[in-house]
Amino acid sequence: MPRFALKIEYDGGPFAGWQAQAGQPSVQATVEAALARLDPGFAAGARIAAAGRTDAGVHALGQVAHADLERDWDPFRLAGALNWHLKPAPVAVLAVARVDESFHARFSAIGRRYLFRLLSRRAPATHDRGRVWQVVHPLDVGAMRQAAGLLTGLHDFTTFRSTMCQAASPVKTLDRIDIQETVLPHGAEYRFHLAARSFLHNQVRSIVGTLERVGAGAWRPERVAQALAARDRAACGPVSPPHGLYLVGADYPQDPFAAGVSTPAG
Amino acid sequence: MPRFALKIEYDGGPFAGWQAQAGQPSVQATVEAALARLDPGFAAGARIAAAGRTDAGVHALGQVAHADLERDWDPFRLAGALNWHLKPAPVAVLAVARVDESFHARFSAIGRRYLFRLLSRRAPATHDRGRVWQVVHPLDVGAMRQAAGLLTGLHDFTTFRSTMCQAASPVKTLDRIDIQETVLPHGAEYRFHLAARSFLHNQVRSIVGTLERVGAGAWRPERVAQALAARDRAACGPVSPPHGLYLVGADYPQDPFAAGVSTPAG
Repeated sequence: MPRFALKIEYDGGPFAGWQAQAGQPSVQATVEAALARLDPGFAAGARIAAAGRTDAGVHALGQVAHADLERDWDPFRLAGALNWHLKPAPVAVLAVARVDESFHARFSAIGRRYLFRLLSRRAPATHDRGRVWQVVHPLDVGAMRQAAGLLTGLHDFTTFRSTMCQAASPVKTLDRIDIQETVLPHGAEYRFHLAARSFLHNQVRSIVGTLERVGAGAWRPERVAQALAARDRAACGPVSPPHGLYLVGADYPQDPFAAGVSTPAG
Repeated sequence: MPRFALKIEYDGGPFAGWQAQAGQPSVQATVEAALARLDPGFAAGARIAAAGRTDAGVHALGQVAHADLERDWDPFRLAGALNWHLKPAPVAVLAVARVDESFHARFSAIGRRYLFRLLSRRAPATHDRGRVWQVVHPLDVGAMRQAAGLLTGLHDFTTFRSTMCQAASPVKTLDRIDIQETVLPHGAEYRFHLAARSFLHNQVRSIVGTLERVGAGAWRPERVAQALAARDRAACGPVSPPHGLYLVGADYPQDPFAAGVSTPAG
């Protein structure tokens, strides 16, 4: 059966997360329902696998999934047909690529990238409501960057993972935490860019929630190093809410979407 | 009575426009209802005036209005109280300033700035749904910039104003149309930045709708000069939809919000 990789963007707000769960709206079930309109295998219950199983309320700019279809679709036409059947859900297929059977959206991925948007301003968000985590106090970006630097590299991240995390090991290499500050007329936005081969459950939200405490002046940066060294979930700062978090993309040894045939607009 | 200038951000989606109309939700009535919770004059029907009366579906990043209150509020506390009473409407008061009685949000304004967001990509917008005008074809930014250059300066803009426009004269000076291109992984976004002392009704949407035709290759740039010279509404391109348009701000001889006391966060 021909295998296709799908690059998917979604607003996580209306969903109980990526993963299909009985009686709850999920992104996975939404995409599978669109596939079921096009393919007998999915009409009969075939499933898709994804690079990152985002939690309830978490968004994606470039989730990657793969699907085995009975027909050998033109990727461009498949993207259009899926977007047609996805309406009006806030889920869009950005690109489709025909991939080898050895490609697995989750197991072939060698990197994941996340963005976390943190808005600091007094007035409630309007356009970005549900798309940023908002705090009303100012934040010290220098202190947050100093603390973030203590978390990159190879560490035991027990402090920064959910007690529900099912990963075999809490030891991970965090390749990057860059914090981009944009000064607004009446506040500031902080964009946290994180990259790693893989992340633990709630790792990004635990890290950002802790760095926010540093930015607010409630924690000194060194306390983050102590929390990490404690390898104790209780040492973590508050976990940030999900709606500021975006799965930006997944990386593979070869980018399945590099040909870009499915996106003539630009 | 002490006069206050309010800088207001809103998502225009749920509103029939800025202006209060019987039986329709408006931004003006929403702000006046919040004021009525704080001030007897507004509880008795006092009204506010604004720099720009945005149409149904049009957004604002920095609308300016003024209100006469019976009490001399601390501007910072007034902003907080208004935002409290505005919830859950997607309307936020970014700043409040105490102004002189000679200040009038509409008549004192010497400039208005608008942004129009145009997204070119195949896949439907998710996060930006209702916040951009989307087309599925590629656009030639060079051709759009060339045509935009033909519209700046002092002109009779009869072609580019609504037949409902109540302005005394169609002659206006358009100070600026800058088009910023952002290439996205699967498309591109074009941000049109326009500035003028004042705009005619539907002028921005008429101009952007016409420039989009140029970008799509359906119009040659010179046709825009011919349409302008025709001084005929029928010569205009299609009017773009409202939901890509944002009132960015209004300019005054002295910025009433320059002190910034109401915005400690940032």
